[in-house]
Amino acid sequence: MMRSTLISALSCVLVLSSAATSGATEEQPLLGFDAAASFAQRQLEQRFDANLDPANLRAWLERLAANPHHVGSPWGSSNAEFIAGLLRSWGYETTIEEFQVLFPTPKLRHLEMVAPTRFTAALSEPALAQDHTSGQTAEQLPVYNAYSVDGDVTGELVYVNYGVPEDYEELAEHGIDVKGRIIIARYGGSWRGIKPKVAAEHGAIGCIIYSDPRDDGYFEGESYPKGGFRSATGAQRGSVANMPLYPGDPLTPGVGATTDAKRLPLDETPTLTKIPVLPISYADAQPLLEALGGPVAPEKWRGALPITYHLGPGPAQVHLQLAFDWSLKPIRDVIAKLPGGDLPDQWVLRGNHHDAWVNGAADPTSGLVALLEEARSVAQLARDGWKPRRTIVYCAWDGEEPGLLGSVEWAEAHAAELGEKAVAYINSDSNSRGFLGVGGSHSLEPFINQVGRDVPDPEKGISVLERLRAKRILDAKPEEREKLRAEHDLIIEPLGSGSDYTPFLQHLGVAVLNVGFGGEGEYGQYHSIYDSIDHFERFMDPDFSYGIALAKLGGRAVLRLADAAVLPLDPGALASQLAAYRDEVKKLADTKREEAAERGRLLADGTYTAVADPTKAFVAPQAQDPVPYLNFAPLDNAIAGLAASVKAYREAAAKADPGRLAPERQGALDAVFIASERALTSDEGLQGRPWFRNLIYAPGFYTGYDVKTLPGVREAIEQRRWADVETQELRVADVLAAYAAQVDRATALLGE
Amino acid sequence: MMRSTLISALSCVLVLSSAATSGATEEQPLLGFDAAASFAQRQLEQRFDANLDPANLRAWLERLAANPHHVGSPWGSSNAEFIAGLLRSWGYETTIEEFQVLFPTPKLRHLEMVAPTRFTAALSEPALAQDHTSGQTAEQLPVYNAYSVDGDVTGELVYVNYGVPEDYEELAEHGIDVKGRIIIARYGGSWRGIKPKVAAEHGAIGCIIYSDPRDDGYFEGESYPKGGFRSATGAQRGSVANMPLYPGDPLTPGVGATTDAKRLPLDETPTLTKIPVLPISYADAQPLLEALGGPVAPEKWRGALPITYHLGPGPAQVHLQLAFDWSLKPIRDVIAKLPGGDLPDQWVLRGNHHDAWVNGAADPTSGLVALLEEARSVAQLARDGWKPRRTIVYCAWDGEEPGLLGSVEWAEAHAAELGEKAVAYINSDSNSRGFLGVGGSHSLEPFINQVGRDVPDPEKGISVLERLRAKRILDAKPEEREKLRAEHDLIIEPLGSGSDYTPFLQHLGVAVLNVGFGGEGEYGQYHSIYDSIDHFERFMDPDFSYGIALAKLGGRAVLRLADAAVLPLDPGALASQLAAYRDEVKKLADTKREEAAERGRLLADGTYTAVADPTKAFVAPQAQDPVPYLNFAPLDNAIAGLAASVKAYREAAAKADPGRLAPERQGALDAVFIASERALTSDEGLQGRPWFRNLIYAPGFYTGYDVKTLPGVREAIEQRRWADVETQELRVADVLAAYAAQVDRATALLGE
Repeated sequence: MMRSTLISALSCVLVLSSAATSGATEEQPLLGFDAAASFAQRQLEQRFDANLDPANLRAWLERLAANPHHVGSPWGSSNAEFIAGLLRSWGYETTIEEFQVLFPTPKLRHLEMVAPTRFTAALSEPALAQDHTSGQTAEQLPVYNAYSVDGDVTGELVYVNYGVPEDYEELAEHGIDVKGRIIIARYGGSWRGIKPKVAAEHGAIGCIIYSDPRDDGYFEGESYPKGGFRSATGAQRGSVANMPLYPGDPLTPGVGATTDAKRLPLDETPTLTKIPVLPISYADAQPLLEALGGPVAPEKWRGALPITYHLGPGPAQVHLQLAFDWSLKPIRDVIAKLPGGDLPDQWVLRGNHHDAWVNGAADPTSGLVALLEEARSVAQLARDGWKPRRTIVYCAWDGEEPGLLGSVEWAEAHAAELGEKAVAYINSDSNSRGFLGVGGSHSLEPFINQVGRDVPDPEKGISVLERLRAKRILDAKPEEREKLRAEHDLIIEPLGSGSDYTPFLQHLGVAVLNVGFGGEGEYGQYHSIYDSIDHFERFMDPDFSYGIALAKLGGRAVLRLADAAVLPLDPGALASQLAAYRDEVKKLADTKREEAAERGRLLADGTYTAVADPTKAFVAPQAQDPVPYLNFAPLDNAIAGLAASVKAYREAAAKADPGRLAPERQGALDAVFIASERALTSDEGLQGRPWFRNLIYAPGFYTGYDVKTLPGVREAIEQRRWADVETQELRVADVLAAYAAQVDRATALLGE
Repeated sequence: MMRSTLISALSCVLVLSSAATSGATEEQPLLGFDAAASFAQRQLEQRFDANLDPANLRAWLERLAANPHHVGSPWGSSNAEFIAGLLRSWGYETTIEEFQVLFPTPKLRHLEMVAPTRFTAALSEPALAQDHTSGQTAEQLPVYNAYSVDGDVTGELVYVNYGVPEDYEELAEHGIDVKGRIIIARYGGSWRGIKPKVAAEHGAIGCIIYSDPRDDGYFEGESYPKGGFRSATGAQRGSVANMPLYPGDPLTPGVGATTDAKRLPLDETPTLTKIPVLPISYADAQPLLEALGGPVAPEKWRGALPITYHLGPGPAQVHLQLAFDWSLKPIRDVIAKLPGGDLPDQWVLRGNHHDAWVNGAADPTSGLVALLEEARSVAQLARDGWKPRRTIVYCAWDGEEPGLLGSVEWAEAHAAELGEKAVAYINSDSNSRGFLGVGGSHSLEPFINQVGRDVPDPEKGISVLERLRAKRILDAKPEEREKLRAEHDLIIEPLGSGSDYTPFLQHLGVAVLNVGFGGEGEYGQYHSIYDSIDHFERFMDPDFSYGIALAKLGGRAVLRLADAAVLPLDPGALASQLAAYRDEVKKLADTKREEAAERGRLLADGTYTAVADPTKAFVAPQAQDPVPYLNFAPLDNAIAGLAASVKAYREAAAKADPGRLAPERQGALDAVFIASERALTSDEGLQGRPWFRNLIYAPGFYTGYDVKTLPGVREAIEQRRWADVETQELRVADVLAAYAAQVDRATALLGE
């Protein structure tokens, strides 16, 4: 069995590089399995599928989302017990692991316009007759942004659009700065925590964030309860900690927040905001925005409110007062293990968080109940006599909403063990009707493509992968479609941050996937009291069929990773994407060089001044220093070196007679594949944010959610730190050399 | 003088092809003048400028726009007398020429929503305390669309976005057709008359057009009277006759609407709409749009009302009832001549209309008062002893708003004489602060560029041409900027329709220009009662400095055309643009071929079906027949032939010893340049719309305003009439051969 298993595990390299069709793959051996084992595995998957029942998803969602269950809440605690009870009842070795984390909750929230007229923001989401949990006022966390500092500020208001760095450049061209003022930004355009960070960098003293109906309200579709989009009084809670610096408990960076952990003093905690921040609904925002004067906002800044959007500053002045309870709260992660038979010290991890901002039917319960049903069916297989080769670990995280607390603290607390044992981590979160969404480590790209080809779309019968391909084709420009049609594997999105994969990928160097469905739900209830059972069952996934699809996808991935003779990680997939990322950073430098030169020309020949309307304030953009030509040789050489290693590996894989490999070489190959992921990290981490140790994938320091691949190099260019670029390339070159050394080891194992 | 005059007239060809800088041109001789005459002409222009006084513009605008002055109104008649009186008092041979035209006015307007709730549209624009003419209710034409048929229809409502042909393709993909239904379209995206035409072609029984605040209301800026943009109750009047078939009086196509003209019976008049049409404000539209169900409108279709835009059909049902007074009304064109000394039978025409929909301070009075001040200053020069070589004709047209009635009927009535005598027609219309707008015949491109270089922008000091260039550069993509910087002459826009140049350019084959300023006014009062003195003086051109700039531009153009030794038309400028237009139609055919093939692929591989949300109606787009490869050789050969003629002409112009030319050859060259413009027309006109005789420039049959260059060829491709393409090319080839023959004649005149 070992011999033929290895054939198929390695021959996939050939299959992947030659096959250009994308049809059914029933005949194609599973990656990491030989044909016979593939057949058996697919039989197992049939039994796995047959166990799945949407009625369970519905029942658990109705139980878990029945009450608000944020960090520290009674229902959150009860949910952890309930989840642990289910997993234990199915046979998992289940524990609840507790940490003590900083989780501020509001004591005082006050927002008032004091000029030119007076208006006091309601800051409340009213109960609806059509939503049976919306009136659980006593248990609901009010609308707020976690990790805002306390504050009491009064100042002129300025509208800053999404509040990302480019928006401040635009304001400067109108002669507006925010120093000493309070900004109002709309949600969107970045992760929310970027807004107060950038505002404070520009000297603002307070930050209001509102939900414009353009972005998730009536502009998109009917608002709740008529439709699923955000209503006038719906508002978005959420964390605003400086998570691109480090996520997890702000007081315990890098270590688990156990009771006796060493903690930073609150006033030395770097990830709290610098200024007070409050999220509001558009019912509360509209009077403030209407009271703004100054220039009319640029066209792209205008939302869907029936007003003329102005920039300010003033005449609107607002008073913002916030105070929080800064005490520690307990979080409860549920960890459930099904020990592997052959390789108990290789762990396949699968997780979804269980805490919510309020009732959280969609976020996170929709993903969590799919994970639970998956875990139940896996356990059923075990009860029916199957035993995984590797250990399977199901995780239900607490405290994701405030800052990935549960997953980060657990990953930090168990860093050494996970460094040895973690094979892969598969994450999910909110789920709804629609299209497969898949991001992760490129080394898992061929694997998850194969999984996606075996899961049928509930609405269309075709595989979820082919439906995603169809969408990508239709969304693409016509001239880009041929390439998408010809690709055997869909390229998966590299990951920034926003859910619990972050500590695994970016702190520990574990291969990860983030999976889920969406795009056909009406998703305007995000982080509001209306993310409820009633909303979910009308507008997100009424028959839970996409919950079942997620269980099939996650379950297949877990079962295959657990059972494969050799781990189905492909060291080649990363190499080809790296070349694309390298091309991007080169192009970024060229674009910045051309932009600086072009701006210089426009300034020199007076074009800005010639065009500007003299009745409106206008300040021409600042001249930029010329962008030097940069030495990209270290990156080029590192990528060329890796490409050579990958080529040799593929040739060896094609020629290898697996029969000559000693059985223990399978384990050695597994170890090489695991080590290759770890090799992408550096102990020093990224410049200025050492918690992020992966030098290939990171969330942007000014995007929060969105990934920056080759982050050290890319952000040095974005932030015009030209002198740092080569240094950062050399650091990437080091990790790529280490990665290539692992690939060479794999080649050697094949050739021996 | 003749000798040196010709040198400069011809050497311009060399100057234009070699000079790549765009600075001051004080030293450069004027096109058509020698250096000495240029100097004298520029001295004349200084005196012309010195006469100009913005106080006159203000006084006349306040007089002319003091009351509503639409076709047939007492104030309109009084204005004609006033204008004629001014012109006569300045020394012009002035007549008022009257025609009798069909001009329907409303007897009954009723719009009511009858289901699911009842709502009756107010259909009125209320008076404002801040606008002193807005309360002249008794004299105001109510809000309506001229040349809508009478009708009484009830039906389900469908929202069709702008109501252009592509919008109906989108509706079809949602499974919606408009047959037997009433459509509601928003203003914009085409000339308004296209909307009922296309709606009727698709079977609709009624048409409502409303002004969405996205397009000229609060989305753009504060609404009137706080700002200049359209308010909730402001609505847009306007003609909806099928003017792309023929403009002018619907009853007398091709002939002047004199009292005894032969008239079509009303029920055989092809340019009336097929269905009743009514324009409304968004205050009247919002309840109707809010009552629509069905799919959410595509993102680009959504306006700025605080609602979710749905497509329908229904449940909203509306009752639309319209009846008009179909009697004939008189229109009064004011024609004022200053006879030329040397060449009285060469006429330089300059016009602007005087009728308005209501008070029309901006449209058309702002342009008209600039023309009047220009005429006054020209007359002052004449009174001071100067005499133009050619005859100058100032025209103040009546009846432009309903359908270019005044200019078309006059041009038709005087077609033979104009065919002989008209040298060029220069049009203006509304004017405001901002940037030069210039369109017209490419043969006048070098000329108007030179004029624009000599007129200073009132706000910036640089020339209006250089300010326009700066704007084009800043608006362009960075990669297109070098070309714009290097161009000596800015390419002027070819003209479709929308103002009184149309009969001259497209019916008679006279070289035209359309000039004006705009882009910095707040233009949300268009065709409403709020296009008033108060609005204009706050939001359009408060100090009338752009009115003076227009007088300087128009005056220079008139004076130079009138005085030049040889007419400054350039037969080469058209040739190079024709090659660009030929490339466009080829690319259009290629794009259509690729689109049809791509659509076929998407249909065949099931992509549309795979992506569609099954909970929403979706009909995949219809397969298109493959697009054949077309024979473009006739067009290529004709353009190559013309290019050869132009090359020979330029060489002859460079080598010609003008001293050897007999004096009468100047006149012969003038005749050749005039004949070359006429040569672009064909007696048969465009296929299906013979009134449009110019085979190079026409308004699109489905755009109304926007030009279609090479219209026969381009529209055959757009409308998928493949078999017609070559026929249409052959017709273009014929006129280009005739044009080339004129160029050859000019070459011969130089070489003799």
